[in-house]
Amino acid sequence: METSKSSKFNQIATTLGHTFEGEIKIGGNYVSAIQNDKEIYISGQIPRVGNTVVVTGRVGSEVTLAEAQMAAKICVMRALALLAQTLGSLDRVKRILRMNVYVQSAENFTQQSEVADGASEVLYAILGEAGVHTRTSVGVYQLPKNAAVELDLIAIAD
Amino acid sequence: METSKSSKFNQIATTLGHTFEGEIKIGGNYVSAIQNDKEIYISGQIPRVGNTVVVTGRVGSEVTLAEAQMAAKICVMRALALLAQTLGSLDRVKRILRMNVYVQSAENFTQQSEVADGASEVLYAILGEAGVHTRTSVGVYQLPKNAAVELDLIAIAD
Amino acid sequence: METSKSSKFNQIATTLGHTFEGEIKIGGNYVSAIQNDKEIYISGQIPRVGNTVVVTGRVGSEVTLAEAQMAAKICVMRALALLAQTLGSLDRVKRILRMNVYVQSAENFTQQSEVADGASEVLYAILGEAGVHTRTSVGVYQLPKNAAVELDLIAIAD
Repeated sequence: METSKSSKFNQIATTLGHTFEGEIKIGGNYVSAIQNDKEIYISGQIPRVGNTVVVTGRVGSEVTLAEAQMAAKICVMRALALLAQTLGSLDRVKRILRMNVYVQSAENFTQQSEVADGASEVLYAILGEAGVHTRTSVGVYQLPKNAAVELDLIAIAD
Repeated sequence: METSKSSKFNQIATTLGHTFEGEIKIGGNYVSAIQNDKEIYISGQIPRVGNTVVVTGRVGSEVTLAEAQMAAKICVMRALALLAQTLGSLDRVKRILRMNVYVQSAENFTQQSEVADGASEVLYAILGEAGVHTRTSVGVYQLPKNAAVELDLIAIAD
Repeated sequence: METSKSSKFNQIATTLGHTFEGEIKIGGNYVSAIQNDKEIYISGQIPRVGNTVVVTGRVGSEVTLAEAQMAAKICVMRALALLAQTLGSLDRVKRILRMNVYVQSAENFTQQSEVADGASEVLYAILGEAGVHTRTSVGVYQLPKNAAVELDLIAIAD
């Protein structure tokens, strides 16, 4: 039976036009997620769908605020997919403890918080109170593969 | 009775010309502080006093090193105010485990560590040995609301 | 008797041409490492050998990818030296939980992940499965002392 949280996840995935299914793999001598006792660390996620980074460029010049918010949503959906995979179910997420959001910014673009709001909204929409987190948002000069946004998470399991 | 640590906090607040009183609120689906067992995560703080960001611009061109150090002090005082609010008293801070400092930098400005020293000094002045922390300081391209400095913390409670 | 892990550490140190011996000190009211129960936080490390930062400049223009990867290796060797010093031996590292990698990037340089791979390889070469970590890599505008790379770690002790 589909739980309420996985149902909301799937609804948002449909809205974004992606499934976020399958095992998310990354290269190198590192992994996407580590569970240490009750804490789960999620590696930095970029708005990648399959092998394609779907939102690239500098936010504030090449990328609009709305596009960057969508990028942030895709990043956080990837993080949630990894959490579900690690814990077996999103129902086991007790709390999102921290989210760090990095926005590849144009000079003079200062709405990094508004970009991050896209991801924060998804966390709350899917996880409810468990999704209310602490957050740090900064504007960086470059991101891997020219991604517009990158974010990472620390979550607490029940 | 005012404790020694809250007294030192108030002295530095007076020096900076602000009270850091009242509940610090931020918008969106996130919060300023989360306590998870003994760990307290504090969201990224910018040098905001009331509704105004008091130190804006790029450090090394529009903002001097001294101004940036003052910005870092205001940020860390906000973080300490949140810790005091979360724990009831700064006396319950056992250790500052990590501080991340982000400096909105001009090209070729390489004194991010010296900017962060402003915040580190305040932590030690108020908390003593409990304020001695690990630290990472980087120079970013842009910060929310054109803030000169942003920092976040992880603290351990007794 | 030299353990296998410290032996591998020394082999890589020899390859890099540095010993990473002696107590690594940094200035200010902060420290290089804090152990809190089973977690060890390591402060941001730049590619410093003695008093000299050996790889400086922007990666992608002044610094090549290969030079930046070597910088990342030096940073992570410093972090490992601090872990060994904190725990008494690298054999006590149960897991590297998180590595954050900051690359001082030229405009349009988007291989921050490839730079970070240099450090990830060293962690795996020395620590084996215990060195497999979560990771976030971003491209920043400036780093302290014009360092090409900075990274920090969180490790778990046995």
